[in-house]
Amino acid sequence: MKKNIGSVLALYPMPLAVIGAMVNGKPNYVLVGHMGIMGHDHVMVSLAKPHYTNKGIIDNKVLSVNIVTEEWLAKADKMGCVSGNKTDKSETFSYTLGEKGAPLIDDALLTIECEVEDIYDTKGFDNFICTIAGTYADDSILTDAGKINYHILKPVLFEMPTYEYFKTGDVIGNCMKIGK
Amino acid sequence: MKKNIGSVLALYPMPLAVIGAMVNGKPNYVLVGHMGIMGHDHVMVSLAKPHYTNKGIIDNKVLSVNIVTEEWLAKADKMGCVSGNKTDKSETFSYTLGEKGAPLIDDALLTIECEVEDIYDTKGFDNFICTIAGTYADDSILTDAGKINYHILKPVLFEMPTYEYFKTGDVIGNCMKIGK
Repeated sequence: MKKNIGSVLALYPMPLAVIGAMVNGKPNYVLVGHMGIMGHDHVMVSLAKPHYTNKGIIDNKVLSVNIVTEEWLAKADKMGCVSGNKTDKSETFSYTLGEKGAPLIDDALLTIECEVEDIYDTKGFDNFICTIAGTYADDSILTDAGKINYHILKPVLFEMPTYEYFKTGDVIGNCMKIGK
Repeated sequence: MKKNIGSVLALYPMPLAVIGAMVNGKPNYVLVGHMGIMGHDHVMVSLAKPHYTNKGIIDNKVLSVNIVTEEWLAKADKMGCVSGNKTDKSETFSYTLGEKGAPLIDDALLTIECEVEDIYDTKGFDNFICTIAGTYADDSILTDAGKINYHILKPVLFEMPTYEYFKTGDVIGNCMKIGK
């Protein structure tokens, strides 16, 4: 028998990312744990309105979603501790410009370059609804068939209730087979 | 140096859930891996339009997000293999009605009851944008402070590129501390 603990965010753990965007001609980065997938062709990125990064995203309509792994977690976490409104974060990462002009973090083994199609407003937040312009993956995280291999790529997971990071664990089995 | 593998869904792994809704007066269930968090007060649930469950959600504006754990993964996975359009799934789970009238699956240690505020359309999908009416948690997954404890609750994670399920792994450390 469950009890109602109130209106609590509980849809976790979620993959952690650093969002990259050009702001006033320089790259800027912000840590994000609140994202989503819409249908089979859109990604949603939710950022509080005061973030410096939002200005660049709104101006250029392009952003990168850089999936965080343990190797660079400390640098990623720092992007949530320091604001671009006060500190120039442009030198934090080496980066490559994507085809649409977003800075793709070289440390990330997987980066999604997105074009902003719409901004959905909720209280205090810009929710950027994006199409996927390109998905940039390191060879080391691809299967022989060219798919992303989560036996090798292990995204860091975030949960807000107690503010901890977790590992992506081992495989359990195959979707749409376990129940058959 | 990463290479562009095209417009590929890559924001994984994501927590897996079974969505519950009353359809024509009976509970129905559907498996979902595409959801998201908007701001600090909304959950987004993305369901292909032909799903039988969508009719009930649109009629009643209420749904439940039942977080899947390994104990009941086989039953959950089956909810993605069988359509309510052809098969009556109402007897699959024992359930408790939430305060807003959504069926909360008793097997789930954590269920979020949501009220649909808006439906955002993308190609072929209803993306239900919801407020959180209540969060129902089993005592066994709460910390002494009453927070959700992801050292005990281990949601099953989904990824679409190779259609596998993964475990939520061990803790790595604390958000906003690792980078300081």
